[in-house]
Amino acid sequence: MGMDYSKIIDWIIAEDSFNPETLGKCEAVMSLGNGYLGLRSATEEHYLNETRGMFVAGTFNKFDENEVTELPNAADLIAVDLFIDGERFSLDSGEIKNYTRQLNIKTGTLMRSVQWTSPKGKQVDAKFERIVSLKRLHTIAQRITLSFADDVIVKVRSGIDGTITNTGSQHFSDGDKRFYEKKYIQYVQTTTQSGIGFVETTAHELKLDGSTLEAAAEIFMDRRKVYAGYTAEIKAGQTFVIEKYSNVYTTRDKEYMDKDIHEIQEISLNACKTDIQAGYDVLASESGAQWDKEVWDKAPLSIEGPAIDGFAGHFAQYHMRLMVPGHDNRMNIGAKGLSGEGYKGHTFWDTEIFLLPYYIFTAPDTARKLEEYRYLSLPGAHAKAAHNGYKGAMFPWESAWLDDGEVTPEYCDVDILTGKPVKVWSGFIEQHITSDVAFGAWQYAVISGDMDFMDKYGYELIMDTAIFWASRLEEGEDGKYHINDVVGPDEYREHVNDNAFTNYMAHWNMKKAIEYYHILKENKPDIFAKLNKKLGLEEAYKAWEDGCSKIFLPVPNDKNVLPQDDCYLSCKDIDLDKYKKQEHVGGITRDYNLEQINQIQVSKQADCLVLFFLLENEFSQEVKKASWEYYEKRTLHDSSLSLSTHSVLASDMGEKALAYDLFQKASMIDLGTFMGSSNAGIHAASFGGVWECVVYGFGGVRMLDGKLRICPALPDEWEKLSYTIIWKGQKLAVEATKDDVKVQNLTGTTEVEVEINGEICKL
Amino acid sequence: MGMDYSKIIDWIIAEDSFNPETLGKCEAVMSLGNGYLGLRSATEEHYLNETRGMFVAGTFNKFDENEVTELPNAADLIAVDLFIDGERFSLDSGEIKNYTRQLNIKTGTLMRSVQWTSPKGKQVDAKFERIVSLKRLHTIAQRITLSFADDVIVKVRSGIDGTITNTGSQHFSDGDKRFYEKKYIQYVQTTTQSGIGFVETTAHELKLDGSTLEAAAEIFMDRRKVYAGYTAEIKAGQTFVIEKYSNVYTTRDKEYMDKDIHEIQEISLNACKTDIQAGYDVLASESGAQWDKEVWDKAPLSIEGPAIDGFAGHFAQYHMRLMVPGHDNRMNIGAKGLSGEGYKGHTFWDTEIFLLPYYIFTAPDTARKLEEYRYLSLPGAHAKAAHNGYKGAMFPWESAWLDDGEVTPEYCDVDILTGKPVKVWSGFIEQHITSDVAFGAWQYAVISGDMDFMDKYGYELIMDTAIFWASRLEEGEDGKYHINDVVGPDEYREHVNDNAFTNYMAHWNMKKAIEYYHILKENKPDIFAKLNKKLGLEEAYKAWEDGCSKIFLPVPNDKNVLPQDDCYLSCKDIDLDKYKKQEHVGGITRDYNLEQINQIQVSKQADCLVLFFLLENEFSQEVKKASWEYYEKRTLHDSSLSLSTHSVLASDMGEKALAYDLFQKASMIDLGTFMGSSNAGIHAASFGGVWECVVYGFGGVRMLDGKLRICPALPDEWEKLSYTIIWKGQKLAVEATKDDVKVQNLTGTTEVEVEINGEICKL
Repeated sequence: MGMDYSKIIDWIIAEDSFNPETLGKCEAVMSLGNGYLGLRSATEEHYLNETRGMFVAGTFNKFDENEVTELPNAADLIAVDLFIDGERFSLDSGEIKNYTRQLNIKTGTLMRSVQWTSPKGKQVDAKFERIVSLKRLHTIAQRITLSFADDVIVKVRSGIDGTITNTGSQHFSDGDKRFYEKKYIQYVQTTTQSGIGFVETTAHELKLDGSTLEAAAEIFMDRRKVYAGYTAEIKAGQTFVIEKYSNVYTTRDKEYMDKDIHEIQEISLNACKTDIQAGYDVLASESGAQWDKEVWDKAPLSIEGPAIDGFAGHFAQYHMRLMVPGHDNRMNIGAKGLSGEGYKGHTFWDTEIFLLPYYIFTAPDTARKLEEYRYLSLPGAHAKAAHNGYKGAMFPWESAWLDDGEVTPEYCDVDILTGKPVKVWSGFIEQHITSDVAFGAWQYAVISGDMDFMDKYGYELIMDTAIFWASRLEEGEDGKYHINDVVGPDEYREHVNDNAFTNYMAHWNMKKAIEYYHILKENKPDIFAKLNKKLGLEEAYKAWEDGCSKIFLPVPNDKNVLPQDDCYLSCKDIDLDKYKKQEHVGGITRDYNLEQINQIQVSKQADCLVLFFLLENEFSQEVKKASWEYYEKRTLHDSSLSLSTHSVLASDMGEKALAYDLFQKASMIDLGTFMGSSNAGIHAASFGGVWECVVYGFGGVRMLDGKLRICPALPDEWEKLSYTIIWKGQKLAVEATKDDVKVQNLTGTTEVEVEINGEICKL
Repeated sequence: MGMDYSKIIDWIIAEDSFNPETLGKCEAVMSLGNGYLGLRSATEEHYLNETRGMFVAGTFNKFDENEVTELPNAADLIAVDLFIDGERFSLDSGEIKNYTRQLNIKTGTLMRSVQWTSPKGKQVDAKFERIVSLKRLHTIAQRITLSFADDVIVKVRSGIDGTITNTGSQHFSDGDKRFYEKKYIQYVQTTTQSGIGFVETTAHELKLDGSTLEAAAEIFMDRRKVYAGYTAEIKAGQTFVIEKYSNVYTTRDKEYMDKDIHEIQEISLNACKTDIQAGYDVLASESGAQWDKEVWDKAPLSIEGPAIDGFAGHFAQYHMRLMVPGHDNRMNIGAKGLSGEGYKGHTFWDTEIFLLPYYIFTAPDTARKLEEYRYLSLPGAHAKAAHNGYKGAMFPWESAWLDDGEVTPEYCDVDILTGKPVKVWSGFIEQHITSDVAFGAWQYAVISGDMDFMDKYGYELIMDTAIFWASRLEEGEDGKYHINDVVGPDEYREHVNDNAFTNYMAHWNMKKAIEYYHILKENKPDIFAKLNKKLGLEEAYKAWEDGCSKIFLPVPNDKNVLPQDDCYLSCKDIDLDKYKKQEHVGGITRDYNLEQINQIQVSKQADCLVLFFLLENEFSQEVKKASWEYYEKRTLHDSSLSLSTHSVLASDMGEKALAYDLFQKASMIDLGTFMGSSNAGIHAASFGGVWECVVYGFGGVRMLDGKLRICPALPDEWEKLSYTIIWKGQKLAVEATKDDVKVQNLTGTTEVEVEINGEICKL
């Protein structure tokens, strides 16, 4: 019972049985979207444990002063309640045959079919289809096809439901409700704090054996609800089709920001009419074609090996398209994409470290927008620095709307010892995000070769963040500069000093700023002058030089192990076997509270290994190997970001079997059969991680010191791996087998240099 | 399928089968409460169509500027999810035997029992008991008794759920969550606008075959949720008992207003411990004893006739105790009591016209508090008058917290012609509420003989409202004073002029003020002086005299029919048969919009008949009879207030069969088998109406011009009717048979005069 992988060869992931207790799984992993909107795949009919969700990128709202801003869950457009001879269509009751629910990731089509016999014995063949258009970003289309063994009366109740909340927090003021022509149902809401207007329109088309059925609608308005009722008499054997065409527009949309809500209501109404005219089939096929154009033809990825591995790669690509607001540089990617309320739609380091590489190498325009978002967020980063007594840009650990600044919630979960909520320190002291942002901007510019980005945003981002780091350093009694009281990527260790990841990345950040200082001064005097005026480069330069020379960089111990922080290696070791073998993540937090975990040599994810992953060339092979062995066994992978890093590093270490094992585990984070962990949404960064396992790990791609290296190392289970990457504007097709690799420049407008298996090639 | 009346002889109303589509019925009609809090009887386990609800009197909050203030739905304390060998206990699935859900109104105990076989074949005998204590106003206690046919593992998940909303509107800011001793679960919320702190505490006691089971709790905190999990291994034949003890306290509570939230948290925690120490049986029995003391022994009512009639009377008394905040004069009765969100907890004329008589005659202390509430609301009434350009006190049509003023929502439902929401005019122009309030105060004082109330509040209320009326009158071209553009009690007629009910009651109000002017001036100079200073009595007196002499009072036409307003009688007649026979109320609004209904001779309830009911002595028998015949057939009883008035009048007219028929219908408004109409809560005023049918109609009790008349007219179906009423502090026991009536003064501290069947008696 659970997921059905038998059709993955056809790009289809399916569910083989219906379980009303685990609805969250398919709602999230089979969710639909297009980067503008994300739609959880809740069923047409309602269930007790459902979590309906529709999120429009960037529409953040804050419920009250006790909460942080989050992506509000918009009014539901999807529900359709069906009553057959008075009985509610519900798979909770009656009998189910030939059930399947499936997502075709190639076309972005959700389909569900079932033969259901009601408790009173009425039989229906039901098929439900649904798309969120990748072509028309506001459009959702559904088709329900029903046929019955008996003559029946079917009642349909469907419309717009604005009682939806984010787990009880209501983000919308109830607004205009309207029926136009007794057919088009429109509902207007406004977010309570940010004042964003949402307009939703929906309408139904009913067909009996192909002919339009002119059933008179009963119309209803309840509190926060507006809906229609239809009654149809269906004869045995007839086919009854209900199509529902819906859309959502908001005043945050870039193209409608200047319009008033009435104009948007008009636009939404007309769009609904246009969509109905097109019809379900046209909407579905044009959206499918767009998937080919934007994803499958643009960034092909193919694995000759176990079918599930290839599917996992495509599944990652599918979700990475759903989650990314490629249409608007004022928005970024949430930790759960647009597939659930988890992490409130906030952006983390996940973007730069785990997701950005995919976009840079396959869709650089999109990647640029993600880093433009960081540039546009600088005011919030300045405010955070100033608030904490620092200079420059201190990026928020969690980021939402451009000027929101830090939005990390202060509490979560329960302390099992005190019975009180646990304080979340990340928003205060998980500071490495600032160098991660700089690193992302640098990576983007180097790989894409986009100097326009550097000129307009990149230099400033890297220098402004370096200014922060220089001001963040604390002089110790040893005369060195330390960074005390932080949380590194390993969140099982709070309030540590000289976290290796944090210190090395801060150092990298300042060094990069020094490098660019010279480049600008010499080659781009206009930009230098502009930035000098804005940031005070001369003074900053001195601080960077001073910082770089005196910063304490942890050194490996006598066993070549790089210490994660100033006390990790002296903490006690406990038997972690129970947690290493755990089925669900976080088991250790049910036995120890965080204060206790802080005293144990245990990692949620291993900081040093992420550091090796980013700054590969700065550490010797011996240190990497010894540290790998030390930390791997102490890492519980309680972060979904952990497995893929370890897989790539295992590939680098030549531990093929382990690399493959970790890849398989990483690819199953959402795709796997565990039914609970995706409830609050998919794990966005883990999809970037899967792509990194494949293209970085097995595909051997790496940008090192500004140069492209391709050095594949296929797992034993694979015969061939093919992918494309875009390097400095040139699209390269890579075909790797166990003992060969072919790289072709598909663009061919300029020659590029690539190190392939140790050899420098011009392509 | 539906309600089971077989145990009404034992004060028990039951449900004979479980239907997950019609949960609202029992949630509302079987709700529990004590006037401080009201608790809908949602089941322990969750269902899709449930509407959980717990309301604390007077804790109004306004979600945003688009909404009106309402009683917020507090965090749920009642839910207990059970999993038996991994299967969710849910009557949606599996097999059900021997199901019953029942409310014992004598003791206020809810009980449900069922033999359930899970889909996988596990059998359980389950019994659920619950009380809201009438003795400890903050306390809720539950007991679940389970026994199994097999060895099973039972998982219990239970705590406090703050995701509850009022149909999507969240009224609370999430606050402190705490476990004390891994056992006591506490949750603090604060209303978003009115800033009222709510503290809820709950704890569980588990017992196996009578011994306390020390199962370790797993503890959980989610967003707006805090709950515990218990796992117990139960052998076949063992009895597993789960007791849940809960309470709620708020900063609005009179006795805790000065305490800070931490003190209240302490109080709530300690109360939970005290309740556990008492145990379920003690809490239930002391609450049952309180029911006898406060209601059944205090205001006995007995009918020898069909058992359902007697039960209906008791059922009315039961709910009239649940709904009335007798503990606090800053609160009043909501149109749905505390049993649902309908009408938002607001107070209407329902209190004075339909409910007050019961309290005056049986619990005068409580009645006094209800009128003190009006007095304390005077600032809002002054503000409303001033806002509309009038003088004096113009009471809000809908009333909430003391200084809220008018809180009627502006829109509801859908206009079937335009597809837009319908504008609600009551808050603007349904003005008769002001004289209703004055009438209520007068009624209370006369029947109770409470001169202290008159001195402190009554005179002022009646004079202040009369000042409003004098300023409200509009001089017409005929030299008469008119009241134009109003809605009378019959809300099917908006924007009418010279509504008979409104004009006559305004006239009564001014006349009464004139009468009291003279009384005060002559007998109570201190009070006169005080009120003169406050209200300017000399000037007011002139206006009242002028108003009374020139106000247009509609006169009966040549057929002795009193015109409801200046155009009703000339509107068109349509065939109302369809609507007179309708199963659900409001059918006409699905065929015509309100503008169209305004042009038809049709009434939601008949204004003139309510007028005859209140001012019985001011109209001739001919006019009453002719008007009765004219309006009765045009009245759809689409208001739940309508049937009882008509029943009492039918009794007065000697139409015994019709009176009984209407009484039966009135008593079935909530008690009947129609499963939908009570979803948003019970019909508070209709319970007052039932009592009026019995005691006013058949019991023949009336206060007329300050005197008590008892003139019973039993329906053919009854042998005997016994009841008590308190008249000027003396409790009178009335025993009426078809041809005799005995009245006894049970108090006997003073002699009172009563007209019994036309004869003046001294008792």
